[in-house]
Amino acid sequence: MSLLVVGSVAFDAIETPRGKVPRAAGGAATYFALAASVFTKVRLVGVVGDDFSAADEKLFAGRNIDLEGLERASGKTFFWSGRYNQNMNERTTLQTDLNVFAAFNPKLPASYCDSVYVFLANIDPTLQSSVVKQIKCKPKLIALDTMNYWIERTPAELRETLKQAQILMINDDETRQLSGEHNILRAAKHIFSMGPKTLIVKRGEHGALMIHEKFMFSVPGFPLEEVHDPTGAGDSFAGGFMGYLAAAKSLNPATLKRAMVYGSVLGSFAVEKFGVERLLTLKRREVEARAKKFEQLTAFEL
Amino acid sequence: MSLLVVGSVAFDAIETPRGKVPRAAGGAATYFALAASVFTKVRLVGVVGDDFSAADEKLFAGRNIDLEGLERASGKTFFWSGRYNQNMNERTTLQTDLNVFAAFNPKLPASYCDSVYVFLANIDPTLQSSVVKQIKCKPKLIALDTMNYWIERTPAELRETLKQAQILMINDDETRQLSGEHNILRAAKHIFSMGPKTLIVKRGEHGALMIHEKFMFSVPGFPLEEVHDPTGAGDSFAGGFMGYLAAAKSLNPATLKRAMVYGSVLGSFAVEKFGVERLLTLKRREVEARAKKFEQLTAFEL
Repeated sequence: MSLLVVGSVAFDAIETPRGKVPRAAGGAATYFALAASVFTKVRLVGVVGDDFSAADEKLFAGRNIDLEGLERASGKTFFWSGRYNQNMNERTTLQTDLNVFAAFNPKLPASYCDSVYVFLANIDPTLQSSVVKQIKCKPKLIALDTMNYWIERTPAELRETLKQAQILMINDDETRQLSGEHNILRAAKHIFSMGPKTLIVKRGEHGALMIHEKFMFSVPGFPLEEVHDPTGAGDSFAGGFMGYLAAAKSLNPATLKRAMVYGSVLGSFAVEKFGVERLLTLKRREVEARAKKFEQLTAFEL
Repeated sequence: MSLLVVGSVAFDAIETPRGKVPRAAGGAATYFALAASVFTKVRLVGVVGDDFSAADEKLFAGRNIDLEGLERASGKTFFWSGRYNQNMNERTTLQTDLNVFAAFNPKLPASYCDSVYVFLANIDPTLQSSVVKQIKCKPKLIALDTMNYWIERTPAELRETLKQAQILMINDDETRQLSGEHNILRAAKHIFSMGPKTLIVKRGEHGALMIHEKFMFSVPGFPLEEVHDPTGAGDSFAGGFMGYLAAAKSLNPATLKRAMVYGSVLGSFAVEKFGVERLLTLKRREVEARAKKFEQLTAFEL
């Protein structure tokens, strides 16, 4: 069923202990769309500047990604540069130029207004809400990401957006900051009272934990011998998760658990090369093979 | 089959955000023995001072723990005090008085010299080796724990001990420090060349990862609403792991995986109350029920 993502499309300059790239297409919506398109068609809502060329756009070509919602504005595309430390768990942002993203006001093409699955990537909660308002029929599932910046600066607006979402995907620190609770289970209960009845805590190399009102599910990080670039792992996770759900057309616990695994599979591939490079060559059979490896990594019989 | 542990028996003073205790029986061998005794008989090799009273010793009574190897020396028992920060992941050691432990020279009673499963808790590698030498028949499995102190101060002695062990159980930092490799898979390969063919990386609230020459297995931390005191979680994990293996009498992958789960079960109970308190009231059926919960937490079908 139709899956919509709203979020950033950017150019990134990335430096990790394994190398560096001066300019690579990135942004949450880019990673999300590439990951989700393994499973289903994705409608992308975002904005790029006039430096985003036809060659850059080819990234999305032939991939089940609908770009009708990708606005072209006059000016430069959002630019981010960052450096990762040796353990790849911490990064320093060197530069953030919002450029055309600063005035981004997402407008859904008429053809997107029946979207059934919606992912609100990490942007201003007011914009996240405005996207939800533009969807005419009630979506089956709205999931959102956010970050410390919005939790601190626009708490009231974030609360409004949260009321409309069923799933919140954030990391441990954001979970604690948003809920004011240190313990992750108590934090989840607090977040349930804000709207979402499912919390997915993203833990980088330690995997992800889903806390649903009625069950919990944990998936480990996939041990890799070579991690080249952690950028976009969380958004690729979200893309794999939502893409799988939209294709599966069910939200029962077994499906949600499988979606967690497929999200982790996509996240694990994303970090194998710089930027979105690995996602571009990824085959469905490789995705299925790694999902099997996740099974081998976690399955036991009592 | 017979399981032997050598390690510290101590008094601990512990302060966590959930409370404090001024003097509680602790030490690696204590946690290990209490956890392992859920599954099998444990032979304990350690030393206590004359302040370790008959009342203190009652801790071990009626629990499948053989104390013939617990030496009574003149002087005070090993004392440790520490404080945990809000997130319970970091602790500050406030005081360490080795006392009778400083001159500890483990001597195995004749009746222990046929031990088949051996756990060398975190003590001087020279003492770990001396224990192995006193075992007459070749043990089926020797596992060991160590720490940064021994990795830095007695690397040659540690290397000798490692040659005799099949399983090494340490945390992420220790894995990196011992191997000189940041990546955990490459670190494991390096460690395999030192002797052990199985590495268990203990990750606290993030669970544990077993890297065996032929497979990997990950078990998450069990999400708990109340963590009172993380002291002894790793030693309780080791006790559950080794106790289960000794009772199971097999070292095939399925058994090793189950042992990882039972280790995690014991570790998760240990932190629910202060010191060893929770282990003292623990019933086998509670252990089995939590193992089932680990299954629910991790199982999925593709």
